[in-house]
Amino acid sequence: MSKFLDDRFSNLLPYTPGEQPKTSDLIKLNTNESPFPPSPKALETAEKELKKSNLYPDPECTELRDKFAEVLGCGLTKENIFVGNGSDEVLYLAFNAYKKNGFAFPDITYGFYPVYGEITCAEYKEIPLKADFTVDVDALIKQKGTVVIANPNAPTGIMLDKKEIVRIIESDPDRIVVVDEAYVDFGGDSCVELVKKYKNLLVTQTFSKSRSLAGARLGFGIADSEIIRDLNLLKYSLNPYNINRATLALGIGALNDEEYTAENCKKIISARAYTRAELIKRGFTVLDSRTNFLFAAHKNIPGKEIDVK
Amino acid sequence: MSKFLDDRFSNLLPYTPGEQPKTSDLIKLNTNESPFPPSPKALETAEKELKKSNLYPDPECTELRDKFAEVLGCGLTKENIFVGNGSDEVLYLAFNAYKKNGFAFPDITYGFYPVYGEITCAEYKEIPLKADFTVDVDALIKQKGTVVIANPNAPTGIMLDKKEIVRIIESDPDRIVVVDEAYVDFGGDSCVELVKKYKNLLVTQTFSKSRSLAGARLGFGIADSEIIRDLNLLKYSLNPYNINRATLALGIGALNDEEYTAENCKKIISARAYTRAELIKRGFTVLDSRTNFLFAAHKNIPGKEIDVK
Repeated sequence: MSKFLDDRFSNLLPYTPGEQPKTSDLIKLNTNESPFPPSPKALETAEKELKKSNLYPDPECTELRDKFAEVLGCGLTKENIFVGNGSDEVLYLAFNAYKKNGFAFPDITYGFYPVYGEITCAEYKEIPLKADFTVDVDALIKQKGTVVIANPNAPTGIMLDKKEIVRIIESDPDRIVVVDEAYVDFGGDSCVELVKKYKNLLVTQTFSKSRSLAGARLGFGIADSEIIRDLNLLKYSLNPYNINRATLALGIGALNDEEYTAENCKKIISARAYTRAELIKRGFTVLDSRTNFLFAAHKNIPGKEIDVK
Repeated sequence: MSKFLDDRFSNLLPYTPGEQPKTSDLIKLNTNESPFPPSPKALETAEKELKKSNLYPDPECTELRDKFAEVLGCGLTKENIFVGNGSDEVLYLAFNAYKKNGFAFPDITYGFYPVYGEITCAEYKEIPLKADFTVDVDALIKQKGTVVIANPNAPTGIMLDKKEIVRIIESDPDRIVVVDEAYVDFGGDSCVELVKKYKNLLVTQTFSKSRSLAGARLGFGIADSEIIRDLNLLKYSLNPYNINRATLALGIGALNDEEYTAENCKKIISARAYTRAELIKRGFTVLDSRTNFLFAAHKNIPGKEIDVK
C-alpha cells in the first residue's frame, strides 16, 4: 500500500479468487466453472464480432437485453435487465447504490459480500446460518437495510424456498432484497417471476456457470425498471462500455442455444446425484445441493486431512 | 432514480458516451476509434482463446503484463503494469484511491474526470486552459492533491511538453500525477520512461485508439509497483476477473504485431497532416494535434452552423 492511498482502504482485505492452475493434469473444480465448452452458436457469433473490435461496443447492450428478457419471459422487457462485467460488477454497483441502511447477509455465503461491504464503506451484519446450514430468515428480517442472499447458497448448495424470500421482501418494502442466483439453473427455483410484482427485489444471474462463459465475464441484474435505472446511472458514471463486443456476442449466441444449456445442466444434475450417492456410500454427509458443487463432510476424517489425490 | 438509491448519487450526472449509430452510411468519427481492424495476429490469438471461455480468465493478467512491459521497455516489469477494462476503469480506480487531498485538472479535457470526481465524492477543481488552449501548468501546481492531465489533451489535441509534466511531478512528491496518454501513439512523447524515476506518477494508456481495440475494452496503468499494488487492492475488492479471455488474447496478439500498429499510426498521422492543411486552406484555424482528431474553428462560420453532410 502506498502512502498516497485513501485511508478508508487501509484495512481492506481483498477477495481471493480461486487459483488458476497452470498445469493441465487436474480436474479443476475450485471455481465451479462448467466442464463444457461454450455453445458452438455462441462461438460462431463471437468470432464474427471479434473482427469489429476496432469500434466501441453498444454501451446499452440493447440486443442482449432484449434477448435475455425474451428468454426469461415473465413479462419482462429490456428495461428490467442490467448487464454487468460478471455478476460481481452488478453486486458491487448494488452495494454502492443501496448502502443507505446497511446490509445483512448470512455468515456462510459468497465470500465477496463482506468485501463489497468494506470497499463501499457500508455497515453490514453477518447472520449465522442455522444448525442445519439453512438461512435464518427470521433473523434476517429483524435487520434493517438491504438483505443479500445467494440462492441456492454457496458453499452449502442449499436452496431457500421462494416463499421464504417473499417473506423477506414483504417484511419491509423500503429495503432492497438482492437474490444472487449464480447457480439457479442447476435445479433451483428462480425469483425472476417476482420482479414484476415487487419493486424492491433485485435478482442477479451469471452466464459463468450454466452457460459456460466464466471466461467471458457476463452477469445480469433483473429488477423493476427504477432499480435498473439506478444501476445504469452508476455504470454510466464509472465505465459505460463495461461489456466488450466479443462478450456481448457470446451472450447473444448462448441465448440462441438454450437447448445446449439445458442439456448441460441436465448432465451436471445427473453427475451431482451420482457423486452424492457415492460419497454417502463412503461415509460422507452431503447436503442437498441445487448447484454444480457439493458440500460434504466425512464422519471420521476432518476435511483438512482428506487427500483428494 | 429509485427511492432506495444512496443520497450521495442524487445529483450525479453520468458521462454520455458518443452515439453508436445503427446506420452504415456514415464515416464515424465521434469516438476517435481506429478506422483499421484489429491486427490479424490479435484476431487469430483471440479466436483460439474464445473456445476456452468456460474457464475463468487469469485474474493477474500475467502474460499480457509481461508482454506490455517488454514492449514499453524503460526497465519496466509486470510489477509496473495494471490492466483495466478500458483506461476508464483504471481512471475510476485512481480517483477512488487518490482522493485524499482532492483533484485538479484542466476545464477543457476528457469529460469523464468530473464524473469520476462526483461518483467518488471527491473534491475537485477545474483549472481553465490558457487563451491558446494549452494547459496552465503554474495554476495546476498551485493546487493541492492529485493532478490529472490528458496528454495529448482531448479535445484540443495539444501535447504538453514532458518538462512541464516533470515540473508538476516535482512540485509536490506527496501528490499523485495521473497522465492519461490515450492518444500518445499518434506522435506524442510518452511519460512512461519517467515511471522508474518518480514514485508519484501514474501513466494510463489504452488499446482503444492506436491498437484498434475499442471494442475489446483494454486499458493500462503504468507506475511504480506500490501504485500498482494499490490499484490491484481495489481491483481484487471489486472485480478480480475484470479482463476476459478474448480481450487478454487480443491484447497479447496486438503486442505481437507492433509493426501493424506503427504502420496504422503513420497512416493516421499522414491523413491528419493532409486534413489539417486542407482545413486551413478553407479558412479554418486548426490546433497542432498529436492525436487522431483535429480541433478546428472557422473564422466566419460558427461550429453549430457547419453542416458536415
